Amino acid sequence: MLYNHVALIGLGLISSSIAHSIRRKDKDIKITGTSRSIATRRKAAELGICEVVENSVEAVKGADLIILCVPVGAMASVVQDFVSVLEPGVTITDVGSVKVEVIASITPLLPPEVEFIPGHPLAGTENSGPEAGFATLFDNRWCLLTPLKNCSLESLKRLRLFWEALGAKVDLMDAEHHDLVLAVTSHVPHLIAYTMVGVADDLANITKSEVINYSAAGFRDFTRIAASDPTMWRDVFLKNKEASLEILGRFTEELTVLQRAVRRGDGDLLFEYFTRTRDVRRKILEAGQDTNEPNFGREKK
Amino acid sequence: MLYNHVALIGLGLISSSIAHSIRRKDKDIKITGTSRSIATRRKAAELGICEVVENSVEAVKGADLIILCVPVGAMASVVQDFVSVLEPGVTITDVGSVKVEVIASITPLLPPEVEFIPGHPLAGTENSGPEAGFATLFDNRWCLLTPLKNCSLESLKRLRLFWEALGAKVDLMDAEHHDLVLAVTSHVPHLIAYTMVGVADDLANITKSEVINYSAAGFRDFTRIAASDPTMWRDVFLKNKEASLEILGRFTEELTVLQRAVRRGDGDLLFEYFTRTRDVRRKILEAGQDTNEPNFGREKK
Repeated sequence: MLYNHVALIGLGLISSSIAHSIRRKDKDIKITGTSRSIATRRKAAELGICEVVENSVEAVKGADLIILCVPVGAMASVVQDFVSVLEPGVTITDVGSVKVEVIASITPLLPPEVEFIPGHPLAGTENSGPEAGFATLFDNRWCLLTPLKNCSLESLKRLRLFWEALGAKVDLMDAEHHDLVLAVTSHVPHLIAYTMVGVADDLANITKSEVINYSAAGFRDFTRIAASDPTMWRDVFLKNKEASLEILGRFTEELTVLQRAVRRGDGDLLFEYFTRTRDVRRKILEAGQDTNEPNFGREKK
Repeated sequence: MLYNHVALIGLGLISSSIAHSIRRKDKDIKITGTSRSIATRRKAAELGICEVVENSVEAVKGADLIILCVPVGAMASVVQDFVSVLEPGVTITDVGSVKVEVIASITPLLPPEVEFIPGHPLAGTENSGPEAGFATLFDNRWCLLTPLKNCSLESLKRLRLFWEALGAKVDLMDAEHHDLVLAVTSHVPHLIAYTMVGVADDLANITKSEVINYSAAGFRDFTRIAASDPTMWRDVFLKNKEASLEILGRFTEELTVLQRAVRRGDGDLLFEYFTRTRDVRRKILEAGQDTNEPNFGREKK
């Protein structure tokens, strides 16, 4: 399975899914893991997700691949915890939604004989914690790697094959471009969903039970998106500030145009707009990144 | 099955689901249906959804329940087509997402011995057309009825039992309040999803294939929402203008606060906000209007 010992720092949805997915391929590879939270460590140990240890220094001992699976705001501090015990030749990667800031905060901490290859599997659900993981999470999903300029091609190839073994398709991307693309396809959509759910929760003339009972298609999907881990998402917006603000600006501009069309009763503009966006959906279906069966890529183990 | 002959005006997702759902309970009840489009009529006939006839005058002949299943902008004109052949005692209802304007446009057309009871089943998928319908669409979903002041209690009870027989839970609501609640739980979320998909489609520095391939959770759900029928949604915004603009105003206000928090790096505000919205999701799960299994209420027949 390309590596002999994988260390997972953080034991949430993504890392537990990585562990399940590795085990699907290879029952014998050593997997150690840890979490800052005692409750999470205990839960992960109960579930048998991996060999759960007390701290990251123990977890990375002897590992040839370390995967950082903590919120992006915590990445640098967890690396600082174990950087002194790293052995030459180890590869570190991460699964964070933001790349530029993570690279800037981690790279200066690392000794030269350690390879850091930033990564981001585009997969997840609204659930969190070690109990949320499942083996098929990465199947047919993209994993983006944003290697640094001096990256060894051999290490990169090995990590790429690792993600492919977990079922993912791998693509390489420049870190800055990654952060802009993700601002569009993930970060700003999440912020908007959080906002809409907040508005609904806040209206004085509509009861909460009305919002909850009548969450017809539309709002229901927003609440699912807005149920994602608050710490993870706080960190995303703190760390991908520029790209998020740029895309938010575009969004507000566009929404203003549609709002004016509603006010003026400009049905042609609305119809044309809604027709164009329907076409984007068709292309996503064609690209195999979703199906009309709405549970695609979201099954539980 | 409470009525002897149900006439469906319009043959899309909702009316074909009504037909399938009626048949699940009662194989023998007469169901006629029609659509303006020849192709839709042909498709519905092929699928055996109901007795498909050429026009609404034929469809309503002898019916004791007429269900208007066309976009809200077309409701008045379809009623005008068949109003002259209506027989006393018939009940007309509709399934439109907007109630105040529909009531205002239809009520003046009707003779006094015809009962119009506006309705709105809160159910749907992003797919449209007669092939999109399935028998379980309304199971455990709410159907809101917004009866007029002079509504006969007997007719109302019959219609209520009809929707319950299709699997729905029924609630009564004032039409104006309905339009505001739906602006929050459905209309504005749709407009926002359309906007976000439009922004992504429009960015010069991100290729369309990047948007499509990397439509990670978040954007993918938006594209599903934004794939809904353009005519239906155009009409919703034209007909529910005031409530939509009111909720859009609240949304923009709230988004501005979050945008400022991103700009200022106010992690506490973001964390607190994201935690609160997560709670709304929990309550929706508790109310049985969604489950963690994301295909709930969306299965195909």
